Amino acid sequence: MSKGVTKQSEDFSKWYTDVVRQAKLADYGPVKGTMVIRPYGYAIWENFQAILNQMFKDTGHVNAYFPMFIPEHFLQKEAEHVEGFAPEVAVVTHAGGKKLEEALVVRPTSETIIWHMYKKWISSYRDLPLLINQWANVVRWEMRTRLFLRTTEFLWQEGHTAHATAEEAQDETLKMLEVYRSFAEDYMAMPVITGKKSESEKFAGAVSTYSIEAMMRDTKALQSGTSHNLGQNFAKAFEVTFQNKDNKEELVHATSWGVSTRLVGGLIMAHGDDKGLILPPKVAPYQVVIIPIFRKDTRDLVMDKVHEIVAELKRAEVRVHIDDDEKSSPGFKFNEWEMCGVPMRVEIGPKDIEKDHAVVVIRHSGVKHFIKLPELVKFLSDQQDIVQAELFQRALDFRDSNTHTVDNWDDFKDTLEAKGGFIKAYWNGSAEVEEKIKNETKATIRCIPFDQPKEVGKCVYTGEESSQQVIFAKAY
Amino acid sequence: MSKGVTKQSEDFSKWYTDVVRQAKLADYGPVKGTMVIRPYGYAIWENFQAILNQMFKDTGHVNAYFPMFIPEHFLQKEAEHVEGFAPEVAVVTHAGGKKLEEALVVRPTSETIIWHMYKKWISSYRDLPLLINQWANVVRWEMRTRLFLRTTEFLWQEGHTAHATAEEAQDETLKMLEVYRSFAEDYMAMPVITGKKSESEKFAGAVSTYSIEAMMRDTKALQSGTSHNLGQNFAKAFEVTFQNKDNKEELVHATSWGVSTRLVGGLIMAHGDDKGLILPPKVAPYQVVIIPIFRKDTRDLVMDKVHEIVAELKRAEVRVHIDDDEKSSPGFKFNEWEMCGVPMRVEIGPKDIEKDHAVVVIRHSGVKHFIKLPELVKFLSDQQDIVQAELFQRALDFRDSNTHTVDNWDDFKDTLEAKGGFIKAYWNGSAEVEEKIKNETKATIRCIPFDQPKEVGKCVYTGEESSQQVIFAKAY
Repeated sequence: MSKGVTKQSEDFSKWYTDVVRQAKLADYGPVKGTMVIRPYGYAIWENFQAILNQMFKDTGHVNAYFPMFIPEHFLQKEAEHVEGFAPEVAVVTHAGGKKLEEALVVRPTSETIIWHMYKKWISSYRDLPLLINQWANVVRWEMRTRLFLRTTEFLWQEGHTAHATAEEAQDETLKMLEVYRSFAEDYMAMPVITGKKSESEKFAGAVSTYSIEAMMRDTKALQSGTSHNLGQNFAKAFEVTFQNKDNKEELVHATSWGVSTRLVGGLIMAHGDDKGLILPPKVAPYQVVIIPIFRKDTRDLVMDKVHEIVAELKRAEVRVHIDDDEKSSPGFKFNEWEMCGVPMRVEIGPKDIEKDHAVVVIRHSGVKHFIKLPELVKFLSDQQDIVQAELFQRALDFRDSNTHTVDNWDDFKDTLEAKGGFIKAYWNGSAEVEEKIKNETKATIRCIPFDQPKEVGKCVYTGEESSQQVIFAKAY
Repeated sequence: MSKGVTKQSEDFSKWYTDVVRQAKLADYGPVKGTMVIRPYGYAIWENFQAILNQMFKDTGHVNAYFPMFIPEHFLQKEAEHVEGFAPEVAVVTHAGGKKLEEALVVRPTSETIIWHMYKKWISSYRDLPLLINQWANVVRWEMRTRLFLRTTEFLWQEGHTAHATAEEAQDETLKMLEVYRSFAEDYMAMPVITGKKSESEKFAGAVSTYSIEAMMRDTKALQSGTSHNLGQNFAKAFEVTFQNKDNKEELVHATSWGVSTRLVGGLIMAHGDDKGLILPPKVAPYQVVIIPIFRKDTRDLVMDKVHEIVAELKRAEVRVHIDDDEKSSPGFKFNEWEMCGVPMRVEIGPKDIEKDHAVVVIRHSGVKHFIKLPELVKFLSDQQDIVQAELFQRALDFRDSNTHTVDNWDDFKDTLEAKGGFIKAYWNGSAEVEEKIKNETKATIRCIPFDQPKEVGKCVYTGEESSQQVIFAKAY
């Protein structure tokens, strides 16, 4: 039996944990920092996978699988990469009852092993571009963990592409960022800001990193996907060259890009409310839950009608679930399924059948509709897009009303403390200033948005003239 | 450029490796025993996954994900399980720059961690049955490895179910074996024998293990999938009980079942020939390859027609690939795509267009058809099922002609040495006899088939009367 979740407005962090546990999205594993993704949570991830996988194929990518064990010395080959990842790897030292000659690192990301293979596969411009994606588990040993958002092992996809020219690599980097933007906004109904990361926040080994940044309902930021232009760094480290059309040897250009099960955490925090989860129809495991209301003598009447509706809904490709558990009351079920975030609930009992209608309740708005039975399936089908659009608009309005533009340091601090949210401010581009702001306020530069004002402004910290406005926020 | 594969008839083992490497199915990873699954090989695995996943859902299962790191002491909890798996695990001793308090085993299979979680999730008969499947990577440190067939890390699915009664667990065990049989025969076109494993060959921790056994084209056996009735062994080890309808505590009954990327090796070895791979249409990444034949002045004419055909084929849901690379000759391409096992090849040039036909060559039979262009798409669609059925029949005929029934020990040895293949013989059920036969001939009992003769017979080794006929074979 559900204990009811802590109200989001009272304690966001506790609300999050309550929802994840009580909606049976995930559970802690036996080893500290590990996560079990339970069937309901995994069904969301499967929906994400199916959509993204199609988007990757539509943009010309193919899937492959590389081993998760990486010889320790591979990591050393790219100087920034090893500095970034060595401190958080898990290391296999024994296998098959023996100590290994060389320890193996469990992949924290696969650039090194993939570029080791690319050296074997690439020799001519005709082998390029090479556009490979991998769905896999990775391990990063984190001290502070949180279900979905930061776990020592997580699931993700990582794209790794090889190109003949710097321009092509940059195009690919931005193309995949756009895929992520579209996925976040069009499927997760989660508006994101696209832009470039500052030097200090970029991926270890990249020339430049781009990201999509979303606002959660506590107004904090969640980096939700990244796309890296790796330049020729990994080609150099792994000596991957190709013969160009003029028969000259050149280093290959690279990108990598990824999103992870962290996105499930993002989905929860971008839409949920005091009652629990709110899932957008396009990614919800169930888009409609039907709660039949009957006593013994009306059971058959109601269930026959329900099965009729379900058959029609399935033909209309609506994902539907019937909760006909006779041990729980309808009221209990209403709460349960609201907590689980199912976009629409249908209530139907003998009196409804008599009146030839059903009650439909929209999860996010609480709006109740009485719909004539012959129109029910069409109504529920049509509502999918309507609910999806309303959720996106709701999240966008929330972000807009929690985004503040400031132009001086006192305002910056006051706004951040009093209101939180995203702060738009000019920045002089100095890593030192970025670091000072972070130390004084805990706010980091989320990204330098592509969308820039035409005017120059003044650096919010130093007052210097600056042409780049950035987004500051406290972040997950 | 392809070097041509070793002939299957000359050196089966070398043929296998050549095909896997040259068709770009897989490559060796940098760590001994590891495998990189390349896009063409992974596409086969993705087709397997899509089909099996649907079969699992249709039989009521849901997917979830459990951590791959298992505390070392978990393995100790089930006596036979630890004995079976401890010698081949990989062990993480350090993570995040520190030595771990307890070493972590990388899952060789997930019974222990899953039953640790089931203890938290199961308390009443209302929580049962619990029908969960996981798609994951696992690690078993093997000394002798071979691409797809036996690698230190491999991909698989593992079903883990919990039931209220022994009968239900047994039903589930057999139901999933039947899913595997259907998958092997109806999709991979690979006939299999279903039956029970002998005591010495069963899974470490199971009460009984069932398997599907296929014959490869060198007449050796490949165990292609297993389904285990685990009884209450893991429930005991992890103290998983439930309150039954009479409010009494009982131990839960369990099953587990799995197939792995080994099946890709099975597919290769069940159908291939001297020219290379032969892929059944239902699991082939490309079902049709089109090779346009043109010179500069006829390029547009031919390619326009080809694109027209491709558009129609896609509407008919045929997976089609165009090889319009202008640097290779048609003859070279014919060999390449035969080696890659594409079920059907379409050749089309300006003269064909003039005659309003195209040439279709069926990979496995080499049969050449001249098909009128207006009928081409229908012909190619219809051929899918025909080719699929022919491949199954071809494999079945091959198995039948390489299966020998013997009733005395001299015949057993002579037949095995002279002909190989599957040997049907009676066995007295003794592990000692099984061991002796294995030591003397390297043949093992593949399974005790469900399909048994009505008559009793004599144990092939001892001459004792026996009611069980078994399949002996040398196996992968």
